[in-house]
Amino acid sequence: MAKSRFEYVREFENHERLLPECYIVVRIDGKKFHEFSKFYEFEKPNDLNALKLMNASAKNVVLHYKNDIILAYGESDEYSFILRQNSTLYNRRTDKISTLFVSLFTSNYVALWTKYFPQKGLDIKHLPFFDSRCVTYPNLKAIKDYLSWRFVDTHINNLYNTAFWMLIKKCDLTTEGAEERLRGTLSKEKHEILFSECGINYNDEPEMYKKGSLITRKGEILHEDVIKQIEHFFEGF
Amino acid sequence: MAKSRFEYVREFENHERLLPECYIVVRIDGKKFHEFSKFYEFEKPNDLNALKLMNASAKNVVLHYKNDIILAYGESDEYSFILRQNSTLYNRRTDKISTLFVSLFTSNYVALWTKYFPQKGLDIKHLPFFDSRCVTYPNLKAIKDYLSWRFVDTHINNLYNTAFWMLIKKCDLTTEGAEERLRGTLSKEKHEILFSECGINYNDEPEMYKKGSLITRKGEILHEDVIKQIEHFFEGF
Amino acid sequence: MAKSRFEYVREFENHERLLPECYIVVRIDGKKFHEFSKFYEFEKPNDLNALKLMNASAKNVVLHYKNDIILAYGESDEYSFILRQNSTLYNRRTDKISTLFVSLFTSNYVALWTKYFPQKGLDIKHLPFFDSRCVTYPNLKAIKDYLSWRFVDTHINNLYNTAFWMLIKKCDLTTEGAEERLRGTLSKEKHEILFSECGINYNDEPEMYKKGSLITRKGEILHEDVIKQIEHFFEGF
Amino acid sequence: MAKSRFEYVREFENHERLLPECYIVVRIDGKKFHEFSKFYEFEKPNDLNALKLMNASAKNVVLHYKNDIILAYGESDEYSFILRQNSTLYNRRTDKISTLFVSLFTSNYVALWTKYFPQKGLDIKHLPFFDSRCVTYPNLKAIKDYLSWRFVDTHINNLYNTAFWMLIKKCDLTTEGAEERLRGTLSKEKHEILFSECGINYNDEPEMYKKGSLITRKGEILHEDVIKQIEHFFEGF
Repeated sequence: MAKSRFEYVREFENHERLLPECYIVVRIDGKKFHEFSKFYEFEKPNDLNALKLMNASAKNVVLHYKNDIILAYGESDEYSFILRQNSTLYNRRTDKISTLFVSLFTSNYVALWTKYFPQKGLDIKHLPFFDSRCVTYPNLKAIKDYLSWRFVDTHINNLYNTAFWMLIKKCDLTTEGAEERLRGTLSKEKHEILFSECGINYNDEPEMYKKGSLITRKGEILHEDVIKQIEHFFEGF
Repeated sequence: MAKSRFEYVREFENHERLLPECYIVVRIDGKKFHEFSKFYEFEKPNDLNALKLMNASAKNVVLHYKNDIILAYGESDEYSFILRQNSTLYNRRTDKISTLFVSLFTSNYVALWTKYFPQKGLDIKHLPFFDSRCVTYPNLKAIKDYLSWRFVDTHINNLYNTAFWMLIKKCDLTTEGAEERLRGTLSKEKHEILFSECGINYNDEPEMYKKGSLITRKGEILHEDVIKQIEHFFEGF
Repeated sequence: MAKSRFEYVREFENHERLLPECYIVVRIDGKKFHEFSKFYEFEKPNDLNALKLMNASAKNVVLHYKNDIILAYGESDEYSFILRQNSTLYNRRTDKISTLFVSLFTSNYVALWTKYFPQKGLDIKHLPFFDSRCVTYPNLKAIKDYLSWRFVDTHINNLYNTAFWMLIKKCDLTTEGAEERLRGTLSKEKHEILFSECGINYNDEPEMYKKGSLITRKGEILHEDVIKQIEHFFEGF
Repeated sequence: MAKSRFEYVREFENHERLLPECYIVVRIDGKKFHEFSKFYEFEKPNDLNALKLMNASAKNVVLHYKNDIILAYGESDEYSFILRQNSTLYNRRTDKISTLFVSLFTSNYVALWTKYFPQKGLDIKHLPFFDSRCVTYPNLKAIKDYLSWRFVDTHINNLYNTAFWMLIKKCDLTTEGAEERLRGTLSKEKHEILFSECGINYNDEPEMYKKGSLITRKGEILHEDVIKQIEHFFEGF
């Protein structure tokens, strides 16, 4: 590599590393996907193709890093990749891990777009992009709780969104009306509203919407009760 | 946002911020582009379309963040985006800045691929991706020296690569032979080798190859002597 | 250094460095000095000997590190040491700088105690100790503003404390009464209260109390209007 | 707290926290104690009073922080304080923990000096001071290995130093001669040299020298085989 008198500027860089022997989560999150999903007219509350595209992109990331990954889990416009405690990927450099994951994910998302949205070309002024972060968890309980956190979040968000959009679509409420109707309701009441007012049994909703998607190291995509299966998913780690 | 007993896992996150009043560089770098450029048969030493694709992608990033960016500069498979001292983009959160830049860049690179390589479809198993890092520079001299460093690097690398590949293409040397021929040679000698052995006047090479590409906040793409123009480029910052 | 199979635990350490070309502030602050000053019956609002002891300790730190220090400034139970932009002290390692400064300061404080409080022995259960932090400032304006911040703070605190304690001592108010009397008062009103109610002209108070103490690299201790002299104090840096 | 237009300088501070659910080590280390011990003519290889002073100072730190500390371990001029996994001391702020520990330790060391060295006053130009660092360990095995590392280090260093100084004191070797004699020798050979050349049975050396000092949360000071007792020392943590 060439040297010059300007070379000293490299000393301003810092190469932070993640604490050894901790599980690593890389979580990717869509940037302004509210707007993005409007522009491309995603179906509400869930767009089957958009979710499949997220899963397909995440699956390719998992397969690329399969020696380091335990599993990945996603919902809506976010995905979490969970790495082994003893991973030495990129010498555990924080910036390398978080940026390469998000870049590879984005690359897949754009390259696979046409497969899932053959009728909608990507508009160069409305491209998808994602942020990413690394978080370390020092023990198995904490990393299980992380995954459980995302799973419970999926459930709560999807139940709310399903009720919200069905009130609009099936009961002709405005967005404000739907918000108002749901304010302060418990989970059970949302089920009831969906059933009695919109004629929808939430239990019959697709598993992927209710449970999110979990990708194993082998690339299998599952939609299961993560909390019930939590021991199973981390077996051997 | 939904709450659960797992919520505590958020406390493991850290939201590091870049020091205020420092210039910020976001530098993006192709991951294994040696391999990537082989797979897609990029021309050597420079592939005009590959460079144009880099520039077009970087230009879109510059325009997206034009309020925060002073200029961007790129060569080969890397690009540096230089942000204003007083930028408050994403509250100066390191991970937000480095990951969103690289994700938006990647998104553009893939989306624009077909425009620059209409005959070569992207293979899903050989997608482009990039790493990214943030570096802070506390004063104008240092940030100018950063840009000068990348410029000198461009010059040195391109002169070497041009001589290397011309020895192979025009003088039928092997890669080992070309390496051997160039080992320890000074800049002047490489010019001479190119001229007398390969019949090439390095000065006649395209400006973009010799000088890299500098993108202004308005999206103009220039190929100029950065060191000579350094005062000009940072005027007002 | 001896090697063993446990040696790997060193990899959990991180050796963070402060950004090059930034001014460094090391600020030391007394831990629970409210309690400490009560236990040793410091005079209120200012204890001359306690302040002299702070100054003497800080002066020794300044002289020890005189090649790296621009100046030090202190008030009450805190002291700020300002280091040169280009200092390479301990390779700019954050933990080395902040801990060695606070340890040397503490060592001096305890060793010099008897000189300033010959009648009061230190009680082993009530020893003085201090916290410390490093902060970096990228330019001359910012570091001047840092010093100005501490100076203004000194002024505001001392005016308040003087009024507060004089109302108690000279006007027989309770602490609650004094607080009440001063609530919401402007600087000018505090001057007036001191003058008309307590018979004290604040301007006649000792310079050290009103202006804090500034220590030059040569070890001179000054009590001056820092804001008026700010250019002077940073001349040549 | 008083506000001024300079207040913005606080934004340059960063308040880094240690990862939750990790054991914390605070390790304190004498600054240039080689020189310090020469100046105060500490006995070689071990000065009984100097070690007792280290222990007494560390014990007071342990008692001060007894709710957060598991144990402390020291040898020579260093001491490691091991904090509970779930400690929330100072909100786990790195700089608070490392600087307050080293400051309290230093305060004790200086205040207790006269008790252990009644004939030697501290010279203000040769005061003791210490650096300090925080290291986090994510699991019980790693923190045990940390302690074992320091214990093995104690053993290896003390055996070497004992042989080195006895060769000088009892066999009239020069420092160079002693170094030469010991170069490359194994543990067993050092025992043999001590025994046959200096007439010393290393096993009869004081336990404190051979094993270092371990302080329990209750303030007991023990000199035991840490590796053999490692399960015991971390019982319940």
